[in-house]
Parts: sequence; structure tokens; C-alpha cells
Amino acid sequence: MSTSAQIGVTGLAVMGRNLARNFARNGYTVAVHNRTVSRTKALVEEFGSEGDFIGAETAEEFVAALERPRRLVIMVKAGEPTDAVIQEFAPLLEPGDMIIDGGNAHFADTRRREKALREQGIHFVGMGVSGGEEGALHGPSIMPGGPKESYDSLGPMLEKISAKAKDGAPCVTHVGPDGAGHFVKMVHNGIEYADMQLIGEAYQLLRDVAGYSPAEIADVFRTWNQGRLDSYLIEITAEVLSHVDAATGKPFVDVVVDEAEQKGTGRWTVQIALDLGVPVSGIAEAVFARSLSGHAALRAASQGLAGPKPKALGKEEEAAAFADRVEQALYASKIVSYTQGFHEITAGSEEYDWDIDLGAVASIWRGGCIIRAAFLDRIRAAYDARPDLPSLLSDETFAREIAGAQDDWREVVIASVRQGVPTPGFSAALAYYDGLRADRLPAALTQGQRDFFGAHTYRRVDREGSFHTLWGGDRSEVSA
Amino acid sequence: MSTSAQIGVTGLAVMGRNLARNFARNGYTVAVHNRTVSRTKALVEEFGSEGDFIGAETAEEFVAALERPRRLVIMVKAGEPTDAVIQEFAPLLEPGDMIIDGGNAHFADTRRREKALREQGIHFVGMGVSGGEEGALHGPSIMPGGPKESYDSLGPMLEKISAKAKDGAPCVTHVGPDGAGHFVKMVHNGIEYADMQLIGEAYQLLRDVAGYSPAEIADVFRTWNQGRLDSYLIEITAEVLSHVDAATGKPFVDVVVDEAEQKGTGRWTVQIALDLGVPVSGIAEAVFARSLSGHAALRAASQGLAGPKPKALGKEEEAAAFADRVEQALYASKIVSYTQGFHEITAGSEEYDWDIDLGAVASIWRGGCIIRAAFLDRIRAAYDARPDLPSLLSDETFAREIAGAQDDWREVVIASVRQGVPTPGFSAALAYYDGLRADRLPAALTQGQRDFFGAHTYRRVDREGSFHTLWGGDRSEVSA
Repeated sequence: MSTSAQIGVTGLAVMGRNLARNFARNGYTVAVHNRTVSRTKALVEEFGSEGDFIGAETAEEFVAALERPRRLVIMVKAGEPTDAVIQEFAPLLEPGDMIIDGGNAHFADTRRREKALREQGIHFVGMGVSGGEEGALHGPSIMPGGPKESYDSLGPMLEKISAKAKDGAPCVTHVGPDGAGHFVKMVHNGIEYADMQLIGEAYQLLRDVAGYSPAEIADVFRTWNQGRLDSYLIEITAEVLSHVDAATGKPFVDVVVDEAEQKGTGRWTVQIALDLGVPVSGIAEAVFARSLSGHAALRAASQGLAGPKPKALGKEEEAAAFADRVEQALYASKIVSYTQGFHEITAGSEEYDWDIDLGAVASIWRGGCIIRAAFLDRIRAAYDARPDLPSLLSDETFAREIAGAQDDWREVVIASVRQGVPTPGFSAALAYYDGLRADRLPAALTQGQRDFFGAHTYRRVDREGSFHTLWGGDRSEVSA
Repeated sequence: MSTSAQIGVTGLAVMGRNLARNFARNGYTVAVHNRTVSRTKALVEEFGSEGDFIGAETAEEFVAALERPRRLVIMVKAGEPTDAVIQEFAPLLEPGDMIIDGGNAHFADTRRREKALREQGIHFVGMGVSGGEEGALHGPSIMPGGPKESYDSLGPMLEKISAKAKDGAPCVTHVGPDGAGHFVKMVHNGIEYADMQLIGEAYQLLRDVAGYSPAEIADVFRTWNQGRLDSYLIEITAEVLSHVDAATGKPFVDVVVDEAEQKGTGRWTVQIALDLGVPVSGIAEAVFARSLSGHAALRAASQGLAGPKPKALGKEEEAAAFADRVEQALYASKIVSYTQGFHEITAGSEEYDWDIDLGAVASIWRGGCIIRAAFLDRIRAAYDARPDLPSLLSDETFAREIAGAQDDWREVVIASVRQGVPTPGFSAALAYYDGLRADRLPAALTQGQRDFFGAHTYRRVDREGSFHTLWGGDRSEVSA
């Protein structure tokens, strides 16, 4: 057993414990530490056979166990607990040492912490980790930010413990300085919300309009998973939908309360997009759909509102044809969600000077994380072919695919509107698509109204400058 | 000329100047002050004949000119300038004096400032003012928050200078403690964004699908303004659309660059709604539509994307019938926007213990502000009849109106989807409506997925408790 560790993990709840085990299983000696010492002992007792652990009872022991420069991973709750742990350890460290925050921190907090620690000569790495408990143990997708030089020594270790894409590439890259890693992790989660919402809408349409049972819908998803929608979320959707509740014999999905919960990163994605001026309507509708579902009293009070009740298609061929259309709608809407998410990353990268490689981001999401999908290979290819792509929709492959999908996409939205099945995600994605390609938008009228009531001025299509019309006077135009 | 003033205004840009004049025109002696003294002098010289002004050159002079308890209105830019002015004046004031911030402050800043000043015994009133320059001069809608006792002496003055609704009621009320006034003003602006977006969508449909010219559309809006849509924004839409550009002879709306700008309160409304867990999809789509319109490069890169080009209805009767349907869609979507906005106010009021009277809010928006409309009489009536209304949609009148509108609303959304005219606002509102009235939502599937990949647990429809399925094991269910 080694006396010094290449890496240390403090905070041994399930994510921290599994990450520590992952390092140990890959041959690293791992110092482990937890505020409650019993948890440290339990880890070493239970999993000590998996590799080399050094259990440390105190912060001082923990720091002393680490090789220099020290690499110290914090796996505690985001927010104040993270600040508390940093305050505990930073005084024990030396210039050149590294603190790695593997929690779900807000990137603005990561920026603040990185700046403060940089002044002490400590490298702070805000590291997004996706893949849940299983990912942490068997290989997550890892999104580290922070100083580039920290990646020189940390990167190879992360590459070892990370998930591997189907082509063998490790699902980790140096995302960019300071908060870049946590920012990208945030957008990952926002996209995850959108993916789940779109899948939910597809399910509801297959149920209400195609008239399929959950088991039949599971089969549809299994088929889709063989094609371009091949992804972890489609795969587990089939698993959830085919599951039968043992207690009642009913489809599992019918015994679950239909009020979705959320933890905050989806909400952040939308809030930051608003700050950056990026339209992320698909992600926003996904967040709103979850909160709407949770307003039980409001929903109960709304049960009597007028509207159509969905009527399932009678004929088998019609239902099958409709299911094919839903696949097109789901795929097209998914392209839009990713377009919006990558637009947000582009905008964040510009705002904070991160120089994020979008193709690399797509690449490291191909394995380990919740949104892993064959689809991401195509996004990577799009950005590799043209790193300055104005938008995913500008990529020829995606543009062609959406062109092929859009008639069906429209028919699916029309069916949902006619039948009263809520598809906020499909609708928002389509409106975004039509908005982008519109020759003229009513924004010109908006500018006219703003000039009328607030003298906010407008620009003209035919010459430079800002102008104001004297609406309350003779309505002549003046330069502003 | 008086030697002491009932009220003082510092910050004499156009809003401050007009508010000061409004007080003076209503018989109050107004002390005026500005960092740049020339502006103070200009006001007194130019408008001295309108009433009694006391021009103060220094902060000390300004404070000395005020009757006790002092009432000092700050009309400077929101953010740091406001803090700077407070820091300048607070040391010169005494317990019982009042600082009134009439800027567009974020309610969280107002809460912070109110708390700090309360400790010094100073009453801080965060006051939302809507109606632009004209409103400030001739009568705005005023939304003061802050300590109730401050309203005892301030309220009568505000009632005098405020707009009056058609029934003569002043458009001002004590909204609630600390940040309540600025919060309500923020939501007002969010609703304003939604109103403008919905009007924009109606315009675009009348143009592209009904095939009307801007002048013809102006006539349609004038007709609508005689009915239930009677409102300031509909009125000025007709003015803007009928305006012809003198330089080109073209419709004004066609020479304006179609990139809408925004100042931030709409964005705040959505960000805070996300924090509060309130779905405000209609307002969000309005904010996103503005930012999308402004991404000129992205739009230019998207011009080649596949999709239908709108084709106008050929026959006059068809166009007229379609225009009637658009009125229904606009009205129904407007009900949803206000439902979402009032939901946000309800949630804010609960979160911060403000005890806001929703009927009173509707009442004070009936005059002076940008969203003033006959419609608000009906909202007031709804809350007066039932202050604990779960949602505006639960009001019988609105439920009946939307029931009558919903067939046409669906047809309008279907037409826009089929023709490729982006109507994110109409679509989001309809999806919200159908979501609320849905018997079951796909949120149950979302919960199943979350339990599968993150062990986030779920609730059952048939018994209490939280549960987890051992997805990776024998798929039995355990209590969590």
C-alpha cells in the first residue's frame, strides 16, 4: 500500500465515493476524506480491495497524504458547503496545488472561486461531471474548466477514468478557463431537460393520437433507438414504458404521479441564456412543463376548461404512419434544442473569452452522460468541418434532415393542436425554426410601438443611423 | 413662492423632470435637484410658470428645502447610480424621512435597500412608474411598495398626480412591503412584452395569410379597438401601421429594421418566474422573439432553410373570416399571458409575504401605463369576486370567453404552422392552456426516467410516500 496519493477526494456521499473508487480501480492511489469519519472508514472497509485508498481522518492528514502538486477533488453540495470546504483546505495548500470542484456549481460561483484561489497561487478546476452514480463509478463524461496548465497533469488521469465513446475517445477535454466547464455542464443539463420533454410529448401523442399502449410505445422507442435517435434516453424510455407495476399489474407509467421535479440546472440554463440574449425556447418550455405539471391545485382547478379530448386514430396503418411522423417531429425538435444549447455555449464562450471548441464538447458528450447519443457524432462532424458554423441549422446535413422532416413535423404539431394534446416543446422548436428562416419578422412593428410610446428610436432598412418619429407631433422623422 | 417643499425630485432627466412638473402642476411645491446644476436651472426657467419649484444646487440645500418628514424622490438610472444617490442623501436625512425610488430597480435591490435604510429609521419606497415620459407628466400608473405607514402621507399625493381610470379611480395603490412595488412593475413589463409579441403575430398573420396591407391591418386593429381588445397598445398599433414613410412613400413598418430591442425587465420577469417555479411561457417567448430577431447573422445564415412560403387567402370573405379568427386567437392568448403574469405576482406575494391585492393591481393598470386596457376591468372584477381565484382561467367569464375562442385559436395556430409563419406566443399560450386542462401529463414518464438514471424517486397515484424502482436489479420497488 502506497503512502502517498496521486489524488484525493473529500466528500464521500455516493458521487464522491464512486468517483474515488473509479480512480482507485484505474490504478491511482486515492486519499479519501469525509467530515463524518465513519463514512471514510466504511469506504475503505467495503471497497478497499478495489485499489489503494488512504483513509484520512482530518483535513491535515488528508492534505499530507497527497503528492505534490496536490490534486484535491471536492464532492460536496453546490453552494455554501463548497465554499466552506474550500475555506477549510485552501490554507493548508501551497502554490501550484489544485482544487477540483466536481459538484454542480453555478459557473458564476466557479469564476469567483477561481479568481480568489488564483491570487493564492492555487489552481481551481470547476469540473462538470455527468452520468449520475453509475457514470461516476464506471466512467462519466467530464467537463473540466480552469487553468490550462492544470489539465497537463490532471487531464491524463481524467482521461483514464472517463467514459469512452464508441470510437474509444475519452469523454473529457479541457473545456476552457475558469467557469467554462460548469457552464457547459449546465447547458448539458438544459439540453437534457429538452430531450426528456420532447420524448414525453412523443409518448403522449403515441398514446393519445396513435392509441398505443405503453408497452406498444416501448416497442416504438426500441425501433427508434435503432435509427438516428439512438441514445441513452430513448433506450431507458423504452425500459420505463415497458415496465409493469407489480402491485397493480398496470403500466408503471400510469401509477406514477405526473408531477415532474427538478433540481435547478435547467432553470439556470434558461436564466443565463436570457442574460446572454440567446433564445432557448425549447429548453425553457421543458423547464416550464415540469413546473406546470407540479402545480397540482392549478391543474385541478383547470379540469373543466373547454377543449377537445384526444381521439385515437382507428386504423392500424394510420397509427403506424402517425408514429413515423412523430419520429420526424421528435428528431427535428431535437436538432433545434441542440442548436439552441450550442448557441448558448457559443455566446457564453464569447462573453467570457473561453474559446470553447464546440466539436470537442459534442465529442465528450458521446459517452457517459445522460444525453449520450449517436446524434452527437453528427454534431461533432458539423463543427469539425466548420468550426465557425453560425448555427447547427447551418450545417448541410442537419439542414437537409430537417428539410426532410419538416412536413411531418408540421402535421404532428397540427394534430396536437387539433386534438388538444400539449406539445409546447415541438411547437416552440418549430416556431424558432420558422422565426429564423423568416424574411421579415414583426419585430419592425415592435420597434415602431417602442418608438411611439417610449421614444426608443429605430433603425431604417435603407440608411444608417437611429431615428425617431414625432408621433405626438406632425409625425415627421428626426435623427436620434 | 414657498420656502419649503412637500416633495423633492433628484435626477432631472426626462422622467424625473416630468414627474416634478406633474407634482407642481397639481399644486405641490417641488424641490428639484440634479448633479449637473444647469439642468436644475433649465427646469425652473422653462417650466417655472407651471407651479412652485425650489431649485437646489447642492444636496444639503435640497434636503433643507424639504418639509419634515422629508419626501425625496430619486429618478436616476437603476443599479449603481441609485445606490450612489442613496449613499449621498441618507446621511443627511432623519428618522421618519422617506426616500422614494421611482426608477426601474430590480425588486431584489429594492428589498436590500429597504432593509438597510429601515435600520436607519428611513422609510424606503420602491415605486414602479409606468407610462413613459407622457405618463410621468400627465398621469402615470404608480406602483409603490415599502412600509405601509409611508403611504399614509405619500399616497394622497400620488393619487393626485396619477392617471385616473375611466371610472375616476386613481391608478395607484400601496402594493405591499419592501420590493412589492418594483416586482409588480416588473411583471407589468413582462406582460407588456407578451402583449406586444401577440400583436406582432396577429399583424404578421393578417399580412401573410389574410393578405392585407399595413393600412388595411391598421383598420382591422381600429375595429378590434372598439371591442374587447380595447387598449392603448392596440390603438397605437393602428397608428404605427397606418403611418406612411415620407421619404419612400412605403408603409412605415416596412422601412424599419425588424430587430427588436429590449431593456431588461421582460428578461427579469422570466428569470424570477423560473426561480419561483411559475410557468410564464408566453412572456418567455416574447422575450426570446425579440432576441431572435436581433441575431441578424444567424437569421441571414438561415434564409435557405426549407419550409413553406406563406400564401395569402384569395377571397375577400375568407380573409375577413380569418381576421376574425385571429382576433379570437389574440384575445385567448392575451388571457393566458395575464394568467401567467398574475400567477407570478401570486407566487411572489407568497414567497415574500407581501399580501398583494391582485384586484387592486389590475385596477391601477387600467390607466396611465402601457398595458392599460378595458380588459383589466374584467380582471379586477374576477379578483374582486373571488380574491383566492387559483388562476384567471378559473374565473367563469374568462373560462367562457376562452371556450368560445378556442376553436378559432386552434385554427389560427394550425394555419401559422402550415404556412410557416412563426407564432411562438400563440402556440405557447395554447400549449399552456392544453397542459393545464390535461388529465395526465407525460411528467409521469419524466419521473420514471429520473428515477431510472438518477434514483430521484417518484410518488404513486395510489398511496403516500416516495418510491424507487431497482432498475438495475430485479426491478422491484422500494420505499425511498
